[in-house]
Amino acid sequence: MKKHNFSAGPCILPQEVLKKAAEAVENFNDLNLSLIEISHRSKDFVDVMEKARSLVKELLKLPEGYSVLFLGGGASLEFLMTAYNLLKVDGKAAYLDTGAWANKAVKEAKLLGEVDVVASSKDKTYNYIPKNYTIPADADYFHCTSNNTIYGTQIKDFPKPEGLLVCDMSSDIFSREMDFSQFDMIYAGAQKNMGPAGTTLVVVKDEILGKTGRTIPSMLDYQVHISKDSMFNTPPVFPVYVSMLTLEWMKELGGIAAIEKLNEAKAAILYAEIDRNPYFKGFAEVEDRSLMNVTFNLTNEDDKEAFDKIWNAAGISGIKGHRSVGGYRASIYNAMPIESVQVLVDAMQQLEKQLS
Amino acid sequence: MKKHNFSAGPCILPQEVLKKAAEAVENFNDLNLSLIEISHRSKDFVDVMEKARSLVKELLKLPEGYSVLFLGGGASLEFLMTAYNLLKVDGKAAYLDTGAWANKAVKEAKLLGEVDVVASSKDKTYNYIPKNYTIPADADYFHCTSNNTIYGTQIKDFPKPEGLLVCDMSSDIFSREMDFSQFDMIYAGAQKNMGPAGTTLVVVKDEILGKTGRTIPSMLDYQVHISKDSMFNTPPVFPVYVSMLTLEWMKELGGIAAIEKLNEAKAAILYAEIDRNPYFKGFAEVEDRSLMNVTFNLTNEDDKEAFDKIWNAAGISGIKGHRSVGGYRASIYNAMPIESVQVLVDAMQQLEKQLS
Repeated sequence: MKKHNFSAGPCILPQEVLKKAAEAVENFNDLNLSLIEISHRSKDFVDVMEKARSLVKELLKLPEGYSVLFLGGGASLEFLMTAYNLLKVDGKAAYLDTGAWANKAVKEAKLLGEVDVVASSKDKTYNYIPKNYTIPADADYFHCTSNNTIYGTQIKDFPKPEGLLVCDMSSDIFSREMDFSQFDMIYAGAQKNMGPAGTTLVVVKDEILGKTGRTIPSMLDYQVHISKDSMFNTPPVFPVYVSMLTLEWMKELGGIAAIEKLNEAKAAILYAEIDRNPYFKGFAEVEDRSLMNVTFNLTNEDDKEAFDKIWNAAGISGIKGHRSVGGYRASIYNAMPIESVQVLVDAMQQLEKQLS
Repeated sequence: MKKHNFSAGPCILPQEVLKKAAEAVENFNDLNLSLIEISHRSKDFVDVMEKARSLVKELLKLPEGYSVLFLGGGASLEFLMTAYNLLKVDGKAAYLDTGAWANKAVKEAKLLGEVDVVASSKDKTYNYIPKNYTIPADADYFHCTSNNTIYGTQIKDFPKPEGLLVCDMSSDIFSREMDFSQFDMIYAGAQKNMGPAGTTLVVVKDEILGKTGRTIPSMLDYQVHISKDSMFNTPPVFPVYVSMLTLEWMKELGGIAAIEKLNEAKAAILYAEIDRNPYFKGFAEVEDRSLMNVTFNLTNEDDKEAFDKIWNAAGISGIKGHRSVGGYRASIYNAMPIESVQVLVDAMQQLEKQLS
């Protein structure tokens, strides 16, 4: 039975990417060797790493002066590395608290210096994005989370701080057009729109590094990784390769502009159904709704058993909401076909028919 | 043409592991979903992580009181984490310098406190393992590298320090029987004997943690990872899965005792040829020779072109020596069949015939 995979992450990847990835595990580049048993210093893998790095620059339309890294350790390690690399000794950082992940980033930064949380939407279980906050002019950087997977909120307009602008785009990178040069640093765990778990993308403006006055451990120092072309240590070969394949797939689709249109179409039909169908209600504030994670609840929690039966029968998986929010979360990342979203909409309409 | 893959790492993995891994990328556990597109919190993946952790305990015959972690970031991150977790504020650590990787470990530890390098074999390009050194009784821990990939040396007997015994076993874990309970902590990048690049195994005695007086960043804190069953953040799913498959393969072969016998047989025929064949000489001191990485040079460098032609024609790959040592390095990890070692021996004998 065909599965409709709404998992929040690790999540759906393009079928053709999965097929190519499986082939490479058995025989990569007709070498009669597996991708995962060759040296990362071999030309075959160096080409993969370089292609992945260059596709990121191309898709994000980055101007000169940015470096692209594929690191191990996960975005959670970037919470610490951001502060290590950008928070000056005796400096200050400003953070926007839009949920659990933003909070974790704050926690690690606090180990290295003063952190000013400029605004928070914790008062309403993070169902909105705070606005009209003030970023201290003397903050070394301002850190925000562009998309909040758990709550289904997304920042539409980014502030222009005096200091640097740093963004955790783990769950919506490559999903919408933007002037990415407004950011001084972007990071993103691969496991939503880019690839499998196990590598983290870092995009950083070279000129902002090396200015904190700190001694940075090698593995946490972006300048060290940049100087070694993202190969200071053995990189996570397979996750980087699958990321490269997914980046190629995005380029072939027409780049981020084309993908954004598809994402808008998918989100539109799902949010329309949530707003129309009296048995459901949206969780996030309408103006802050995410194009990636659509959170919604039943109007009447007693209908849970009936609805769960319907979507299970339809082959839908991964739509259980996060425990802090309850209800449902349909993650409709880049690789999710609109047909699967329609299957979910049909399931919601079936509940309505059944109960009316 | 069949390849004989002597790569130093990432390196050869068992064919049946590669086949299963490729299958899981297309359809995992008959879920009609790929391994890399399901939630790491799903039962299917939690089972993988738990099985991998438990197989490590079983194969290493660890007593109660040890935790097993599969982390991201690479063994290079453990250089830092070791010190963060075990080096007391105002404490001291002792390190044995047996090569480039040991050196890198020293460098990161020095950021956090006093480091005493108790002995070094740098004077002879690390072609031996120092012995008869003294470990200061007040050192919080002693750190060593069990196998030195670049130079082909291996520690046969480990000291019994007053403090903790910590070992980087990246390139020889699961290759030989030992009393692993003599170690307080072991770490190993997966990409030699355990799996693909992208995850690092950490085995640590619970009672040694939390005693440094330091505030440790979350991602660098073993206690944080242990408290979350090695899932504090999204783990490197594919590398962990392939590691689990390789651990299963090792168990089916008869465990480490059986594997050690095979490794000894492979190393024996190759070292015998190096010692017999007048056109070659070994690099490492005989008593410190590694069972994993066999380093050797041509007696006469002028024969390089002739020998390179012979082994290339035989389908051998990955035997170029590290630039700091030159010559050749045949890495004969667990998954390397004895047939491939014989092909290399044949190539060496062919050179002899050709030039005699």
